[in-house]
Amino acid sequence: LIVDTAPTKPQQSAATGIPREALEQGIRDTPFAALLGAQLLDYGDGKVSLSVPVVPQVLQHHGFVHGAVIGFLADSACAWAAASLVGDVVTSEYKLNLIAPATGSRLVARGEVIKSTARQVICRADVFAEKDGTLRIVGTALATIAKLRP
Amino acid sequence: LIVDTAPTKPQQSAATGIPREALEQGIRDTPFAALLGAQLLDYGDGKVSLSVPVVPQVLQHHGFVHGAVIGFLADSACAWAAASLVGDVVTSEYKLNLIAPATGSRLVARGEVIKSTARQVICRADVFAEKDGTLRIVGTALATIAKLRP
Amino acid sequence: LIVDTAPTKPQQSAATGIPREALEQGIRDTPFAALLGAQLLDYGDGKVSLSVPVVPQVLQHHGFVHGAVIGFLADSACAWAAASLVGDVVTSEYKLNLIAPATGSRLVARGEVIKSTARQVICRADVFAEKDGTLRIVGTALATIAKLRP
Amino acid sequence: LIVDTAPTKPQQSAATGIPREALEQGIRDTPFAALLGAQLLDYGDGKVSLSVPVVPQVLQHHGFVHGAVIGFLADSACAWAAASLVGDVVTSEYKLNLIAPATGSRLVARGEVIKSTARQVICRADVFAEKDGTLRIVGTALATIAKLRP
Repeated sequence: LIVDTAPTKPQQSAATGIPREALEQGIRDTPFAALLGAQLLDYGDGKVSLSVPVVPQVLQHHGFVHGAVIGFLADSACAWAAASLVGDVVTSEYKLNLIAPATGSRLVARGEVIKSTARQVICRADVFAEKDGTLRIVGTALATIAKLRP
Repeated sequence: LIVDTAPTKPQQSAATGIPREALEQGIRDTPFAALLGAQLLDYGDGKVSLSVPVVPQVLQHHGFVHGAVIGFLADSACAWAAASLVGDVVTSEYKLNLIAPATGSRLVARGEVIKSTARQVICRADVFAEKDGTLRIVGTALATIAKLRP
Repeated sequence: LIVDTAPTKPQQSAATGIPREALEQGIRDTPFAALLGAQLLDYGDGKVSLSVPVVPQVLQHHGFVHGAVIGFLADSACAWAAASLVGDVVTSEYKLNLIAPATGSRLVARGEVIKSTARQVICRADVFAEKDGTLRIVGTALATIAKLRP
Repeated sequence: LIVDTAPTKPQQSAATGIPREALEQGIRDTPFAALLGAQLLDYGDGKVSLSVPVVPQVLQHHGFVHGAVIGFLADSACAWAAASLVGDVVTSEYKLNLIAPATGSRLVARGEVIKSTARQVICRADVFAEKDGTLRIVGTALATIAKLRP
């Protein structure tokens, strides 16, 4: 059936993705990512997942994780998914829906490339809160990631 | 593995979706949808697909389908996916990426519910151009659909 | 006071905007714009306004103007504002909030450039419904417009 | 001329805004805002401005301020602008354009209400980097802020 045609298959191109080791070094070199304790989980072929532990400093005044931290996870998941496919990138813009209050032990984001074009990569990401071993979706994003050397 | 947890499974609620026959009547009662020749393909359980034929009136000056028509497909796919799950809805907002010039015989959009909450339904949609039997992605959207009777 | 610094002042660049006559010819050459009866009102220096008459074909089943028509106005206002400053462009993506049901005699959109960068132009637009001589806001958008020859 | 009609004038409603003192207490009670050193500058009548100092922890690996911090400023400017008009709110979603690399001594965001409706408040914000006394725009956002007691 036509509507089963996979929309998320990234287009192959001459560009080379950033190796996992190089991205992990980049994360260590990013003070704000270190401040949040961001950790890369899965990586490669246009798909990534990462986590951030829930500690008191990332909360807002109702005790939920601050939306900006969910934004960090969504943005990073999209940018790193793009980087795994095409190399150096920078986030051009993203739209983020905050779906539910985030509580638990850690946040996990999963990002994937929808389509890579000549100048940019379109990606989406879902962000989950893990609590007692269960993941609940707390945010979702759609992003435009620009290639640095198109 | 935790990151395999499906993000798109809609939450069940007491609300009842609009039956297919009622939605199709609503499409017939919508002059702009009739003007574009919108046709419902698949429908139900938070997932829909629809099509619009590519005719000269929907083109822009370079001969591609106008972005507003891709917006129509994306918005409709999201709103109808939500309606299939929770009943009467109205689009609150959406973000649309125009990925590639759209040419071919018809456009097809596929929408799905990411999460239904108390007052709104978060949905996404991909829009494809069909040419010589092949579908190419031309747009993707993320939308917030408001329930009329939350 | 620092926060009074104008955010909307476009950056001057070597690029040359499309002349008004050329844009109006482009609108006449765009079948979908002609179908909707789009008319350019003000144009130049990164700011534009346009209108679309409210006729039965642009309505949805509740008698309000279809959201896709509001999307057309918002997208066009942003793209034309960019074109007035930098020349040929194509819409990369936009986010549209549908604020209120649109009724009246015509819709008017006003778009403006927020910032022009090396490869793209960031624009925003507001869409109004005119009824009995009064304008009410019905939509607002933020868009990324790509330069064709960066 | 009709297109001069101000789009940003908020609709008056029965709801009462949060007093400045209460918002400042809420900021102090928000660990993530304290971590970033967020400071309220102007506040009231649907318009706010705030600042965040640029310190090493908020940077990414190229030495620019991390996009998530710009997201924090944009989201906060929108939510607080809404709160100044209608009381308790929560961010439903936002779209953020990252316009230029952010460097300097501090970031300043200015947010304003575009329109307050029955259930939500539509807001926009611009984010600037201050360097040697000059403000340069580094981001812009459009957000939907939900009222907690509609």
